[in-house]
Amino acid sequence: MSETTPSTVTSPRRRRAPGARHEDKRTAILRTAAQLFAANGYESTSLDMIADQLGMHKATLYHYVDSKESILYQCLVKSFGDLDTVIQSMEDRSVPVLQRLRQFCRSLAQAQNSDFGRCLVLVGSRPLDLVPDGEIRRFQRRLDTTVRTLVTEGIAQGAIKPCQPGMVSALLFGALNWVPRWYSDKGRMNLQDVVDTFMDMVTSGIATGKA
Amino acid sequence: MSETTPSTVTSPRRRRAPGARHEDKRTAILRTAAQLFAANGYESTSLDMIADQLGMHKATLYHYVDSKESILYQCLVKSFGDLDTVIQSMEDRSVPVLQRLRQFCRSLAQAQNSDFGRCLVLVGSRPLDLVPDGEIRRFQRRLDTTVRTLVTEGIAQGAIKPCQPGMVSALLFGALNWVPRWYSDKGRMNLQDVVDTFMDMVTSGIATGKA
Repeated sequence: MSETTPSTVTSPRRRRAPGARHEDKRTAILRTAAQLFAANGYESTSLDMIADQLGMHKATLYHYVDSKESILYQCLVKSFGDLDTVIQSMEDRSVPVLQRLRQFCRSLAQAQNSDFGRCLVLVGSRPLDLVPDGEIRRFQRRLDTTVRTLVTEGIAQGAIKPCQPGMVSALLFGALNWVPRWYSDKGRMNLQDVVDTFMDMVTSGIATGKA
Repeated sequence: MSETTPSTVTSPRRRRAPGARHEDKRTAILRTAAQLFAANGYESTSLDMIADQLGMHKATLYHYVDSKESILYQCLVKSFGDLDTVIQSMEDRSVPVLQRLRQFCRSLAQAQNSDFGRCLVLVGSRPLDLVPDGEIRRFQRRLDTTVRTLVTEGIAQGAIKPCQPGMVSALLFGALNWVPRWYSDKGRMNLQDVVDTFMDMVTSGIATGKA
């Protein structure tokens, strides 16, 4: 969503360091790989197919990425790296806890619906376990812990009803992880409206209490 | 959850028709296939691997199932076939609409967390499109329509706040589709508790309205 297509060509007016050009190229490779994984499945996509799609020799491709697993890991860094700051900002108690929870869900949805985030959500559960050192799983647990901590704080404060924080997390992550499967940024709602609608329902409930 | 392991051996005390034995064998094949798809991914699982796991010749396997796509379709029939009756019962207006919605979600969760249902949920989005005539997609739309119709009825009656029925459906399906990824029937909660906890949150909201 918030991603722009990176240029692999250096503008003549604005000279850039070779390192930046390398990084642009790598981003373009990752984006193509992410789109192929999301469209065809992780197992069905080979490094050969990624090189073909980019019109690139496989040897050149290996200069930028060394395995399919490392591509998945780089997609995590690209899409969810910015969430570090958001997670830290969740500790700012001057903002009401339900407002922080909403802000966290908005940021998470932005990350999940970028090209890189979509890939991680759409490849399904199994490929994510192939990433060395369980890095993706560890990051997912951190997201889960962030929500649980906010809910626990909200219960202690009296802003949230006594409930199991893990179940609030399971409800919200389920709903948000499903969004990349049905959401299109060409539809009527923008992504923030989607998240806010979910949060309104979960915060205030859908029942009137009548009838 | 509610599935029991089918016997492929006919009890000597209770003679059964050859048709029933064929059906037992086919169920055992489908269950093994479903478990392999869920564990290894759809693309990574071949008919050869399914035959190997069952200690069966591939030619024998073809006597029961003719392709991977047909296995997915049969998993749909096995897991979601019983939902037909549940969907019909949703029209019984003598039961309060929010109670019917809860009952529908309980039945859906049971189906999704059986061996066959788990397979459909865990293989991800793409293999489901390979099933001929879009049968699985059509069934998913029917589930979605059932929820939207209930919510629309609830709004008209005054039991549910004015809202977008499609967004209630997106929230509930997201949350429920996620359950097979984290739920274990060896944990503290049974499946109905999970669904009821979700429904309580979505019905009444998690906020106290204070603080």
